Amino acid sequence: MPWTLNADDVERIAIGAAILGAGGGGNPQNGKLKALLHLERGFTLQVIKLDELPDDALVVPMGGMGAPTIGLEKVGRGDEGSVAVKAVADYLGVEVAATVPIEVGGGNSFEPIVAAAQLGLPAVDADGMGRAFPELQMISFYFDGVAPSPVVMIDCLHRKVIIENVEGTRNVERLARAMCVQLGGRAMVADRPIPLWRLRETCIPDTLELAHHIGDGVLGAHHAGADPIDAVCQITRGRVLFAGKVVDVDRRFERGYNFGRLMIAGLDEWQGATARIELQNEFLICRMDDEVLAIVPDLITLVDSDRGLPITTEIVRYGLRVTVLGIPAPPQLKTDQALQYVGPRAFGYDEEYRPLEPSSTPAQSR
Amino acid sequence: MPWTLNADDVERIAIGAAILGAGGGGNPQNGKLKALLHLERGFTLQVIKLDELPDDALVVPMGGMGAPTIGLEKVGRGDEGSVAVKAVADYLGVEVAATVPIEVGGGNSFEPIVAAAQLGLPAVDADGMGRAFPELQMISFYFDGVAPSPVVMIDCLHRKVIIENVEGTRNVERLARAMCVQLGGRAMVADRPIPLWRLRETCIPDTLELAHHIGDGVLGAHHAGADPIDAVCQITRGRVLFAGKVVDVDRRFERGYNFGRLMIAGLDEWQGATARIELQNEFLICRMDDEVLAIVPDLITLVDSDRGLPITTEIVRYGLRVTVLGIPAPPQLKTDQALQYVGPRAFGYDEEYRPLEPSSTPAQSR
Repeated sequence: MPWTLNADDVERIAIGAAILGAGGGGNPQNGKLKALLHLERGFTLQVIKLDELPDDALVVPMGGMGAPTIGLEKVGRGDEGSVAVKAVADYLGVEVAATVPIEVGGGNSFEPIVAAAQLGLPAVDADGMGRAFPELQMISFYFDGVAPSPVVMIDCLHRKVIIENVEGTRNVERLARAMCVQLGGRAMVADRPIPLWRLRETCIPDTLELAHHIGDGVLGAHHAGADPIDAVCQITRGRVLFAGKVVDVDRRFERGYNFGRLMIAGLDEWQGATARIELQNEFLICRMDDEVLAIVPDLITLVDSDRGLPITTEIVRYGLRVTVLGIPAPPQLKTDQALQYVGPRAFGYDEEYRPLEPSSTPAQSR
Repeated sequence: MPWTLNADDVERIAIGAAILGAGGGGNPQNGKLKALLHLERGFTLQVIKLDELPDDALVVPMGGMGAPTIGLEKVGRGDEGSVAVKAVADYLGVEVAATVPIEVGGGNSFEPIVAAAQLGLPAVDADGMGRAFPELQMISFYFDGVAPSPVVMIDCLHRKVIIENVEGTRNVERLARAMCVQLGGRAMVADRPIPLWRLRETCIPDTLELAHHIGDGVLGAHHAGADPIDAVCQITRGRVLFAGKVVDVDRRFERGYNFGRLMIAGLDEWQGATARIELQNEFLICRMDDEVLAIVPDLITLVDSDRGLPITTEIVRYGLRVTVLGIPAPPQLKTDQALQYVGPRAFGYDEEYRPLEPSSTPAQSR
């Protein structure tokens, strides 16, 4: 039975997905509004489990590409995703059964659901990151190094670019990113359809359900007068790394990505200390003074210290009171093969990956 | 009756096309060798006149894209052109009858002939510039501003990029150029097929025959001990603008093009004067001291002062003795509509276009 989303579900997924998005994955507010608008207009937003489709069903991985600051302002026309999915299917002359998010994250959790709904299809409850990452070769479906081909890009003018026969996912990323910049810094991308049996082998399963669970925990805590940050930590086995006030944001648009860093001055038990977080679309590394508190692929997420609501890289700004959460990455991102694409060295850090310990008990209070 | 090229024809076209290429259009030596290699291997290189195909025959405009300095070194695998022509035909599900050069120029005169030969087709004796220009919107087929769609790019790894549904030829140029840079600075491009009746309306006709005639004039003068530069001027109604020694070459690769300038110190009657020629893949403007001697769209061509053989932008170097020829552009490039794309202002020069007078008599001797 497909899961048919209602407005409450959308609200919960938006919160949870943005927390899992590690600062990226597209603006969650825009993604939520797009999903709600489609509900209002009578579309059926359906999510389907990995075991609810036959092995040979073809699923199109998709999502928005571009810097989060651009996605925040350039909301698009709304049908780029379904046009891209249809284009890749037509190009190959195949029928597709569903879409699947390339990454969980505010906007990019909803894009595949909305695109699928426009085509009368469901989205699969899974993704290729269990979080968000900035580059195409960081999608778990492609950790074997075999590039998806063709890849279709559609922008808000319905300009279409098809990239085919490119070896190596890093090369596809390089070509598609250069084109994305020329398309105004934002495009919807649909990759070659994957048979479901292969998706099962390579995906991070049930991440939309997890996002919903996290969102439900946050809103439930609000309702109950409990601590929403504790709720997030319990559900994700994450922990509080730091809390304080954002005192500096250096964020720039470069080569199609947002790069930058934040400085956070500690409060409460972190009084006197400073956290420094570096980002490329997503938060990559969190240091306190010289100590690495967390590093990719583990999730570094900012939430507002009062309400536990996610603060993504494109909206973080001076003066916000934030809590930095560290959430252990899913095991699929921690294999030797995966770390070649999503480990510290893949981002240019000369650091060993030391996995964040999962919290087994409720996180300590701030 | 199609014209079947032999090795002598190839030799002549290579010389003439590079003279018409105004410094660009791809390295003539590489183009010639590629054509000769195909003759040796038994391919039939065929050129067909505009009136030898039916009105509704579909013709694919094509050629190499990229900076001449890169084309000189990156010769490719040899079948990129025919793969691109086949790809655009297959994508649209149409049969094509022939190719047509987007520009006449050393390499780019032969690419469509060779690509067509690989597919058992002829190339049409016409082109879209009557010379070479650096950008896609400078092709006469598109002077109405309607962009070709789709455009297919193929590189030496058979990487394929299809660009579709982009309004405005300048936008297609921008997207394709960015992709060309990512593909290593060189790719074969095939545009949407044009019906022959429309090609007749928009092309510069008979430019391969003209190139052959020029090459024949140069070689004939060598044989007869006559002045090959006089022969070129008579055939093209061009004139000698300047002669001297190249004393400085500033040539760089930037945004996918070669930009730069040459300084030529005058000899003989130009003793004491200096000519300065600016280039973007092709020679654009020639000044003597402060006087503009010739400017786009008129052709500025360098030949060696002894033998009248063309010297293109990628091989011009310090110390060469050169004669600068000015050749009047074909009338199709001088309309108000055309000048928007290929006039001085289209290249950023704040100069009126003052057409070069055709020489009616043999040019004065140097």
